[in-house]
Amino acid sequence: MSNPEWVAVDWGTTHLRLWLMSAQGDVLERLDNAQGMGALAPVEFEQVLTGLIGDRLSGVTPVVVCGMAGARQGWQEAPYVPVPCVPPGARDAIRVTTADPRLDVYILPGLSQAQPADVMRGEETQIGGFISQEPDFDGVLCLPGTHCKWAHISAREVVSFRTFMTGELFSLLGTQSVLRHSVSDGWDADAFETAVNDAMARPAGIGAELFSIRAAGLVHDQSPDVARARLSGLLIGLELAAARPYWLGQEVVVLGADGLSDIYLNALKTQSVWCRAASGEDTVLNGLKAAYAQLKADT
Amino acid sequence: MSNPEWVAVDWGTTHLRLWLMSAQGDVLERLDNAQGMGALAPVEFEQVLTGLIGDRLSGVTPVVVCGMAGARQGWQEAPYVPVPCVPPGARDAIRVTTADPRLDVYILPGLSQAQPADVMRGEETQIGGFISQEPDFDGVLCLPGTHCKWAHISAREVVSFRTFMTGELFSLLGTQSVLRHSVSDGWDADAFETAVNDAMARPAGIGAELFSIRAAGLVHDQSPDVARARLSGLLIGLELAAARPYWLGQEVVVLGADGLSDIYLNALKTQSVWCRAASGEDTVLNGLKAAYAQLKADT
Repeated sequence: MSNPEWVAVDWGTTHLRLWLMSAQGDVLERLDNAQGMGALAPVEFEQVLTGLIGDRLSGVTPVVVCGMAGARQGWQEAPYVPVPCVPPGARDAIRVTTADPRLDVYILPGLSQAQPADVMRGEETQIGGFISQEPDFDGVLCLPGTHCKWAHISAREVVSFRTFMTGELFSLLGTQSVLRHSVSDGWDADAFETAVNDAMARPAGIGAELFSIRAAGLVHDQSPDVARARLSGLLIGLELAAARPYWLGQEVVVLGADGLSDIYLNALKTQSVWCRAASGEDTVLNGLKAAYAQLKADT
Repeated sequence: MSNPEWVAVDWGTTHLRLWLMSAQGDVLERLDNAQGMGALAPVEFEQVLTGLIGDRLSGVTPVVVCGMAGARQGWQEAPYVPVPCVPPGARDAIRVTTADPRLDVYILPGLSQAQPADVMRGEETQIGGFISQEPDFDGVLCLPGTHCKWAHISAREVVSFRTFMTGELFSLLGTQSVLRHSVSDGWDADAFETAVNDAMARPAGIGAELFSIRAAGLVHDQSPDVARARLSGLLIGLELAAARPYWLGQEVVVLGADGLSDIYLNALKTQSVWCRAASGEDTVLNGLKAAYAQLKADT
């Protein structure tokens, strides 16, 4: 196998994804494991990298990293760039001094927003990848996940964005709260739609509607599949109610993994939003490619 | 020490509270430990009881129990009584067959509501205790806790009620979510009030406001005391927004432990609600006394 010209890395809190890239921009190899930032001390990042790709490096090899590796508790802090701005590229990256001279590491910064206070790390690179493919896009990106991001894009810039803890709430409530007794791994599409509509119609009611999921199981034998879909629908409906200034009258592109993107698309369709999906994995790699292209243009 | 005429027990998910009662209605002894329903198999309830009070029993002794001991996964299921109804007394209790013939155990049922689906176990006895002290009360009781209950009381009946997962959400978000990095054990009264008002004004925004607690720490160095008070204020504000049909134009009595009751009273006062506190512990014992009085009247 040939050696990579450069290495693209998406280093999140719980996952590490890494692509060995050819000079032609092709993927030579893709690695994916659970050595996320959350499990690593700062000195361990380089060790993980050389352990994974050390035998594939010949000369000095650029490594372009996005995500939580640039957080204060990560490998080395890459300060946030405030919006509005274009998604950060290699020119905005910090360079990390490594013990292995073959590694030439660039960590891309995240984005921050002063009012309302908000931050992202990693999603800005997905956004950059999307814009590199659709430079004339003027609309809204929705990036579902543990912390779902909504970003308004115009003239290749991130104008503003907002983060929702929907994924984390769903996980905590479904596995740690009293609702864990009521939900299964199943799904019920009608219950999901009803719940989205209920939460959008009466967002304030969410606190009581959540406990009703438990009570409906006890009082009305509500099925665990219905319960899980309803929990998801209430939380996503609450998110859509608050994100209305983002999606109302806009074209929305959902960037993420297939299953979760489909759930968001279904929720948006209940509100007749003009929406479509794009692959989250493709876009993060495209973003890292765009960041690397900037580096190559400069040298 | 004299032997009890009867024993009052509040057997919750995480705690067991038990009072040995004299014929005159005085407390001979009070026990409190962590042997809650959640930690016990059905056969263990009797063992816990005889271990704690076995040497204090002379003849057959009535034991009146409220709370989660009557849940399906508890000691023995005491089916819910549907509202509207007076708080259940000994006539509505189930009797448990015990190995120790000195124990004569009555488990009080909880309450259920068909629409909106809701249930309670234990709070109905606090409500009964409150009504036994203030039989002419016409208004609303708020019982803060892991699952806060709001109940409309009229003509000694529970007319309707609603449960909010506010306490459980606060605990999960503050200790298990990304917000755990941002909150302390401290408090900031102004931040709490602002957050209550923010959530009541824009309840739908809660999903984004939660993540902003984290972001404000990173972007604006928001203090962890402010962060914790803001998390509490947002969640209680969301609850008050949904519970508005309960408290609007009503007299509200908050029944609970001092610290948490004060937080709720402060939140209600931001909305100029006519409210006062009553002790949660006194009311549950008063409720068990009222249930026992019914038993004594029947024999």
